[in-house]
Amino acid sequence: MLTAMETAPRPAALAWSTENCQVERAMAVLGERATLLVLREVFNGVRRFDDMRRHSGVSRQVLTDRLALLVGHGILRRVPYKDAGRRERHEYRLTGKGFDLYPVLVAVAAWGARYYAGPEGAAVEMAHRACGAPVTATLTCGDGHQVAVEDVAPRPGPGARPARP
Amino acid sequence: MLTAMETAPRPAALAWSTENCQVERAMAVLGERATLLVLREVFNGVRRFDDMRRHSGVSRQVLTDRLALLVGHGILRRVPYKDAGRRERHEYRLTGKGFDLYPVLVAVAAWGARYYAGPEGAAVEMAHRACGAPVTATLTCGDGHQVAVEDVAPRPGPGARPARP
Repeated sequence: MLTAMETAPRPAALAWSTENCQVERAMAVLGERATLLVLREVFNGVRRFDDMRRHSGVSRQVLTDRLALLVGHGILRRVPYKDAGRRERHEYRLTGKGFDLYPVLVAVAAWGARYYAGPEGAAVEMAHRACGAPVTATLTCGDGHQVAVEDVAPRPGPGARPARP
Repeated sequence: MLTAMETAPRPAALAWSTENCQVERAMAVLGERATLLVLREVFNGVRRFDDMRRHSGVSRQVLTDRLALLVGHGILRRVPYKDAGRRERHEYRLTGKGFDLYPVLVAVAAWGARYYAGPEGAAVEMAHRACGAPVTATLTCGDGHQVAVEDVAPRPGPGARPARP
């Protein structure tokens, strides 16, 4: 049978706390429902509340909440605009911190294109402006190597804290 | 003032529907609360229910639900194991579809390390086994170019559908 695991070693990760894990902190923003859909809109140039609401299908209340969350975290900033004859309104633009989320969105889009596209193919592609080839998020190390998933080893960082016993 | 935007062009993305967007479909799984934290555990070698619960702090009910969701989507698979003198249990392992999510997790971890680490630094690092350098998710095109965020152009894919008027 497949059950001979009595001697499986205790996972090394259990020695370390997740209480200050940056993935957990990041997901406190990105894991709220519809956050990434709102970011998709802004990355695609859709910056105004009514356009975002209609295009994304996210409800007015959720969209309002998520925009406030993203502004509060410094991921989006509000910029005033005024259409002729109407009162001043605001549109939403990415900050530097927001632009730094593009690899997350591209990685989700690439995975979604592989596993959740319909028979016709993906609804959206990200293309390299210079050559037109599709862009994906790949694993690269600080020494410039392309890295396969199985060649990545998680390790405690400088902020790692021992797990509570 | 900053308000001279009367002539802003209509965003091209509004011509296309989001109803079959692969980001939206992917986020139906990844956007559920704690999904990425469960995946973090499994990618870090923590595969057993009780270990995951204690290490992640995710409640029993949410963890049960998320594991079922991830198994249902073919991202995790259940593998039986048996500790001496105890009944058979299951642990959770990544499928190929699950391993393909690593760029998403690495991208979130890299962004979190930049913006949400404490003063001591990140709690976790991903290292390249071969050289020890930290691994991040970078944008790369199909022709092998490293691509900056501002050099990516979203475009309708083969499955794109016109927006409903």
